[in-house]
Amino acid sequence: MMMDMMSKDGMSMAGMSTMDMSLVQACMDACSACEQACTVCSTQMMSCAPACMNCADMCNTMMRAMLRMQGLTPAVLMSMLDACIAMCTLCMDECLEHADESEVCRLCAQSCKACVEACMALKDSMMKMA
Amino acid sequence: MMMDMMSKDGMSMAGMSTMDMSLVQACMDACSACEQACTVCSTQMMSCAPACMNCADMCNTMMRAMLRMQGLTPAVLMSMLDACIAMCTLCMDECLEHADESEVCRLCAQSCKACVEACMALKDSMMKMA
Amino acid sequence: MMMDMMSKDGMSMAGMSTMDMSLVQACMDACSACEQACTVCSTQMMSCAPACMNCADMCNTMMRAMLRMQGLTPAVLMSMLDACIAMCTLCMDECLEHADESEVCRLCAQSCKACVEACMALKDSMMKMA
Amino acid sequence: MMMDMMSKDGMSMAGMSTMDMSLVQACMDACSACEQACTVCSTQMMSCAPACMNCADMCNTMMRAMLRMQGLTPAVLMSMLDACIAMCTLCMDECLEHADESEVCRLCAQSCKACVEACMALKDSMMKMA
Repeated sequence: MMMDMMSKDGMSMAGMSTMDMSLVQACMDACSACEQACTVCSTQMMSCAPACMNCADMCNTMMRAMLRMQGLTPAVLMSMLDACIAMCTLCMDECLEHADESEVCRLCAQSCKACVEACMALKDSMMKMA
Repeated sequence: MMMDMMSKDGMSMAGMSTMDMSLVQACMDACSACEQACTVCSTQMMSCAPACMNCADMCNTMMRAMLRMQGLTPAVLMSMLDACIAMCTLCMDECLEHADESEVCRLCAQSCKACVEACMALKDSMMKMA
Repeated sequence: MMMDMMSKDGMSMAGMSTMDMSLVQACMDACSACEQACTVCSTQMMSCAPACMNCADMCNTMMRAMLRMQGLTPAVLMSMLDACIAMCTLCMDECLEHADESEVCRLCAQSCKACVEACMALKDSMMKMA
Repeated sequence: MMMDMMSKDGMSMAGMSTMDMSLVQACMDACSACEQACTVCSTQMMSCAPACMNCADMCNTMMRAMLRMQGLTPAVLMSMLDACIAMCTLCMDECLEHADESEVCRLCAQSCKACVEACMALKDSMMKMA
């Protein structure tokens, strides 16, 4: 639904005339799912909790920024994607250490991995278009 | 997916032994959709924008709190639902004033209405169980 | 600084022509301090952590809403103050249980108490003016 | 106050045994001030508003991450500092275009500049220690 709203409103950034909007949508969905998984996982009081809290915040900020493309440039968006990839990778690594003991950690690591992949796919696509 | 994660982890609040988890899930989904719609709508620079920004934040806080039931009581959750209902109602009213001119405002008002209804349904259910 | 910025911009809400801006400023400061204290306290992995995470989010949403008065009405602001008071009171109670073991919990409970008092003072003042 | 709380709790990151905590504190303060200035500025409905909203979110995420060092590594923190520097620089540039018309934009640009400098100072210090 968001994608339709945005396309009607002429979502665009100065400096990049066209974007693969299906990759943007996939990245927003992955960020949203990752925020939720990290929020649940952070309440388990395992050693991954601080990374999960950081990851939930970074993913929410990332998702919201993609919903407000007018307030970005390609360079800023790519820098935020890098930060989100770094944060999700760390969270995934920490959660994987508990994946055998905790199903929540296993699912959180999986959500982080999906978010890393969606951010990378969007960044790759932007670099090809730039 | 979140609901499955949470049920496995024994999501519960002191003071309420059982909740209708399908209503909790529906409320979280409505909050998440409303946060996204408000975030897009706030970038339109219409008079509803400040209400949309407030509503996006309130909905995100509401959704995260429901993912962290261990850090709530029924009374606190109901007080937050009241605040979310009040904020979404205001945002809906402001967006409805632009619904004829802007499809984004029309969709945002619709998301706010759905969020109000989901919050009310959860609160009603909790009051019956209390 | 924020107060000066806002007064220049004509901070106001429909339905309440005047507010005690020193109480608004004090409430924003208390919310900001409480968000920070709760964020630190939540990383301690004690039983108060989920309440601290919820409280940090509620306080941030509360503070931002007061910086965007144009997107509020007195009734919505008072409903959010109620939710913030309820959330901070719960967090204070949970942290007080660890106050003897943990200096961080003691300081977090103190920040929550200050936030409750600032929110109550603002609400009392609004009810007198209404 | 936060710094005292954190030092007592042994704030630290894997991979960096020591940090200049006065630079961390200065960076958190600058992020918090920038979040608040951007939040106010975004309600002015000028062309900088979407950048201000993105900047407010990035600064809040940055500040919270520094309050949860246990959930970071030096590489992740530096990547987030890069994203925050990029976002604040864009917001500053957009606000400077309105600085003559709007005192709020002038102050917001000033807060963004201070935040860029604080983030850079922290990153420089970390690179020297690494």
